Order: sequence, then C-alpha cells, then structure tokens
Amino acid sequence: MKIALIGHRGHWGYVLRDLARLPEVEVSAISGGGDAVEPMAETLKKYYDKEFALYDDYRKMLDEAECDLVMVDGPFELHAEMCVECLKRSKHVFCEKPVALTLEDLEKIEDAYRQAAPGTRVVSMVGLRTEPAFHAAWRAVDSGAVGKVQMINARKSYKLGQRRDFYKKRSSYGGTIPWVGSHALDWILWFSGSRFKTVGAFHSSAENRDHGDLEMTAAVMCQMENGVIGTASIDYWRPLTAPTHGDDQVRVAGTDGVIEVAHGECTLINQGGVRKIALSEDRGIFYDFVRAILDGTPGIVSAEDTFELTRACLAARDDADMNMEDDLEECCIQQNCSQK
Amino acid sequence: MKIALIGHRGHWGYVLRDLARLPEVEVSAISGGGDAVEPMAETLKKYYDKEFALYDDYRKMLDEAECDLVMVDGPFELHAEMCVECLKRSKHVFCEKPVALTLEDLEKIEDAYRQAAPGTRVVSMVGLRTEPAFHAAWRAVDSGAVGKVQMINARKSYKLGQRRDFYKKRSSYGGTIPWVGSHALDWILWFSGSRFKTVGAFHSSAENRDHGDLEMTAAVMCQMENGVIGTASIDYWRPLTAPTHGDDQVRVAGTDGVIEVAHGECTLINQGGVRKIALSEDRGIFYDFVRAILDGTPGIVSAEDTFELTRACLAARDDADMNMEDDLEECCIQQNCSQK
Repeated sequence: MKIALIGHRGHWGYVLRDLARLPEVEVSAISGGGDAVEPMAETLKKYYDKEFALYDDYRKMLDEAECDLVMVDGPFELHAEMCVECLKRSKHVFCEKPVALTLEDLEKIEDAYRQAAPGTRVVSMVGLRTEPAFHAAWRAVDSGAVGKVQMINARKSYKLGQRRDFYKKRSSYGGTIPWVGSHALDWILWFSGSRFKTVGAFHSSAENRDHGDLEMTAAVMCQMENGVIGTASIDYWRPLTAPTHGDDQVRVAGTDGVIEVAHGECTLINQGGVRKIALSEDRGIFYDFVRAILDGTPGIVSAEDTFELTRACLAARDDADMNMEDDLEECCIQQNCSQK
Repeated sequence: MKIALIGHRGHWGYVLRDLARLPEVEVSAISGGGDAVEPMAETLKKYYDKEFALYDDYRKMLDEAECDLVMVDGPFELHAEMCVECLKRSKHVFCEKPVALTLEDLEKIEDAYRQAAPGTRVVSMVGLRTEPAFHAAWRAVDSGAVGKVQMINARKSYKLGQRRDFYKKRSSYGGTIPWVGSHALDWILWFSGSRFKTVGAFHSSAENRDHGDLEMTAAVMCQMENGVIGTASIDYWRPLTAPTHGDDQVRVAGTDGVIEVAHGECTLINQGGVRKIALSEDRGIFYDFVRAILDGTPGIVSAEDTFELTRACLAARDDADMNMEDDLEECCIQQNCSQK
C-alpha cells in the first residue's frame, strides 16, 4: 500500500509513529500542503528510511504520485478541500480533525465521498479511541459493564503554552470546540452508540493571553437520538506545572454501573464493586485504519462517525457563537444537528 | 434564641446535628407541616433533651409558640408557602432547598422578604458550602489560588435506592435539577462570585425504576454575568456498591490554576505545583446561620444567594422540560434567569 502525506500542522505523528509496524506501507510522496515541505521531509526521514518524492503542490502530487491512501494534515481551513481532492481520485483519506471548518465545507466532503469509488474510506484522526484507557473503557461499555448508557461526561483540558499564529484566527483555527472538543464529542458519539439529536454550547476567548480569537473555555451539552445526555468541558486552563499536557477524562453512567477514565486509568463501579480495568494495548489510530483497509474490516472509526462528529462540533461552535452575543434576546440550542 | 421546626422530609438533620454546639438555641415547638409530628418528636428527643410543644398546624404554631427562627422542611411543594408565613411574621428562615418549586412561588417569597422587618434572614440549606473539602476549595479560590475563575464543572451523582412516593411526582418533588442539582448550581454561583446570565439544560426520567416523573439524568450548562462558564452533571446512577452515597465533585479552572474537589479531598494545581489542600473544619450550615444571626455577620449564604440559586434551578428545569419535547422545532436556552 502506497501513501502520500499532505501537511504537518497537527497530528501527522500518528502516521510517523505507526509506520515502523506497518511494513506493508510505502510513503510515495509528501507535500507541505501550503507549508514548507523540507522540514516535513527531515522529520519523516527519522521514521522512514526509504525514498519518497517531495511536492509543493499537493494536487500535482495527487495526480502524479502513486498512492492508495492520503494523510491530510495541512492548514485546517484546507482540510475539506484536500479531502475532496483525494476523494475525487478515490483515495482513502486519513485526515486531521476537524475535517471541515464550516458545515458547507463538510457537505462538500460528504458529496465527494458519495461519488467516490465504493469502498473508499475517509476518517478523521480521533486518536484517543485507541488510547489504552479509553479503549479499555469502551470495550467494557460495549460488553455491557455499565448496562444501558444514560449519561456521558467528557473533559478535555490542555496547556495553552504559546500557540502558532494560525491558532489565533477563527478562519485558520476553526475554534476550540472543533479542535480540542472534537475528542470530547467523539467520546460521547462513540460511547453512546447514537447520533446527536441536539447540541448547545458556550465558549469564551476571555483571558487568552494574546491568542486572538482562540477560545480558552468552552462547554457543550448534547442529547443523543437514543436519549443519552452528554456534557463536555473543554479548556486551555491546564497549568504548565501539571504532570501531563492534557487532562483527558470521560465518565459513562449507565443502568448497571459507572465507568471513568482519568489520569490514564480506567475505573469501573458496578454490581461487582469498585475496580480498575486492565488497559487495552495501544493499537494506534493510523495502524487501525491501515489494517482495516488491508483486512477489509470496518476499523474503529467510520466515515459516518467522522461526518457526524464534525457536524456536531461545528453546530456546537456556531451555537456558542450565537449564545455569546451580548444583545441576544433569545439563544437557541442547535436542533437536529444530524442529517436524517 | 428560640427556634421552631416545621417538617422532616429532607435535611432537618443539619439542625439536629448542630444543636449540641449551640447552647444559645432552644427549640420551642415543632410541627409535622402536614406529615405526622410524633416520629419527628421521637427523633428530636435523641438530640435535644428539653421540653418543646407539638403542633399539627404549623400556622398555629407560628402564631402561638415563641420563636425567632424557623426551620422549614415540610413537603417540598409547601416550602414557599411556609417561608412566606414565616417572613410575614418576620421570623428568620432556614429552609430546605429548593425554597420554591415554581418561579411564581419564588416571587411570593421574595415579596414577603422585602416586606419583612429589616434584618430578617432567609437562606436555603446549601449544606455542602460548609463541607470541609468544598469549603477549603472555596477559601483557596477566594484567596486567589487559581487567579480569575473562568470555568466551573460540578458533579452530583446519588444512589437512587427506593425513594418515597413524593419523589415520584413533579408536583411534590419539583424535579431532579432543583433537588439534587441545586448543590451543583450553588457551587457555580458561589465559586464564580456572580449571578447567572443564561442557563440551558436537559433531563430525562428514562430507566427510573418505577419512580414516576423522577429524572434520573440531567445536565445543566450556564454562563454567569461575569463570563464564567459552568457545567453540571446530575444523576441518580451511582451504583449501590459505591463507597459513599454521593459522588460530589467540583472543578474550578482559573487564569492561574485549577482546583478540584473529589472523594472528600481538595487538589490544587498552580504555579506552586500539584498539592492537596488542608480541609476546613466542619462548621455546619445551621451552626453558621445561627452564629451569623447572633454575631450580626453575613453568614456563608445570603437571601440573595438563595433566591438566585432557586431561580437558576427552576429556569434550568423548565428549559430542560422544553428541550425534551419530541416535537420541538426549536429549543431555547433560558436567557437572563436573573432578575436585573
């Protein structure tokens, strides 16, 4: 299997990390996707010691270089266009989340997906699905450890540090709910096993330490089609002195128990008492995607999940924008963010 | 100081527990407030060995028995009427929360409060303000340990067990957001130091094990007038095997740090690193109320807090009712739940 890489703004490290255990995969070409390609090549060489071509123009690369699969990690505002260009050529796509920064752009991807050759895949990098504690929790929930899921609480808290300029503009960043919050909403999607029915959100860029539009604080609340209620707390307030970059947590309460992931551990309380759950192996989200294609299996994340998650994130962000307007007479929770 | 007690449905244990260390307080009379008074008298005698009068009719008691302060813990739907009767007679009131089950009833209390003799106090039993870990967190936040507060996440999760019949009807219970969630919203009010600007909520009575209207699951999201964003997760899904009845948690993120209360401990992360905070002494919410009256100090909770909290809880509950309607075209977050 040949793969081409576009861009290195976000989590292309998922690909780098998993290349070593995917001997079936050859990197045929890379493009900076608008950013410089040389530093990207330097980094890649540390993980991959074969030849690959360099392109400035990613479209030219897609036309010329052999590839079955494309990783998209260019400027956030170009994710959608890049996905569409890949899908037009019926290439599988492994794209940084969110795959689109507007609902209009998301629709373009969905259209291109429907028109691509049957079996073409597109997923976003929801890497925390394969993180050992979260995956262990999901397996437990999937096997009925908490009964029927009723409520999901998610937390994403990051250190801000000093972010690059593109984080400071809504047009090139997309917003904290889609960027950081996508993981939180993905857990709600994944653990509930249902599509989103209604989402509501607040966010604020107050006290953002000269980071322009970037929202430091956000909250999302949602109701799923199957009745599950979810909350997500999303922020950049994690102190620099904290032991890890991210404080990632999820709690899933069901009719027969409660399971929580926090600090890399997974704790279950049900009729069997309180106990830690054995962590899953770290499968890797890129490894999973490639293996699923090679083996013809569904994989841990689908195109439908990707579209649904992106739609929910963008609907929540847009709702938060509306709710934060000072002169608002009435603010509305986004209804039916799912396409039926 | 003489006190009269009305009812024993909820947390009148706050009074019982603190009587021993308030030798200034004499119980003059008690009334079942609609429920039988004899079992109430039996329980009181275990904590208080002097004489007191028994009344079936609480109004008659208020007219006849000497008292400066009245505890109200009757049927939830009578809290408001009982508060009004006390305030009409300019008695201080220590009332189970929520003090009213409807916004109309809340207004009646506020009217009676404004017409009572200056200095008359009315507070609700937000007992967790004096719980050692929560109080320690509040002291730390108040002293600037996390800088300017930006986000507050609250969790209340209780064991359901088998509840008495009055919990099963909205008309006699009021809803899970006002009953259980009032603590969560109170932390948001207290830690933010601001009034509520906007609240939104979902709730659901699904899978409530034959508990009628009782909502098992609820989520509230709010924006405060000072910009703080809050989330509250409220449920009855705590498994019977869990070590404690309630899983009470709060997280306060600010410009300079994050503080969390969970499992009775308080953890601070700021420029000083990660550390546990020494717990406060257990002052007791009733003890605090009486001492504040005797000493002429503000006390840990005010009438304004009580009204604001009740208004937010009821607005959230009403919003959740609206949001859960299946045929809803558009659902709205309650705007300006505060009276300006």
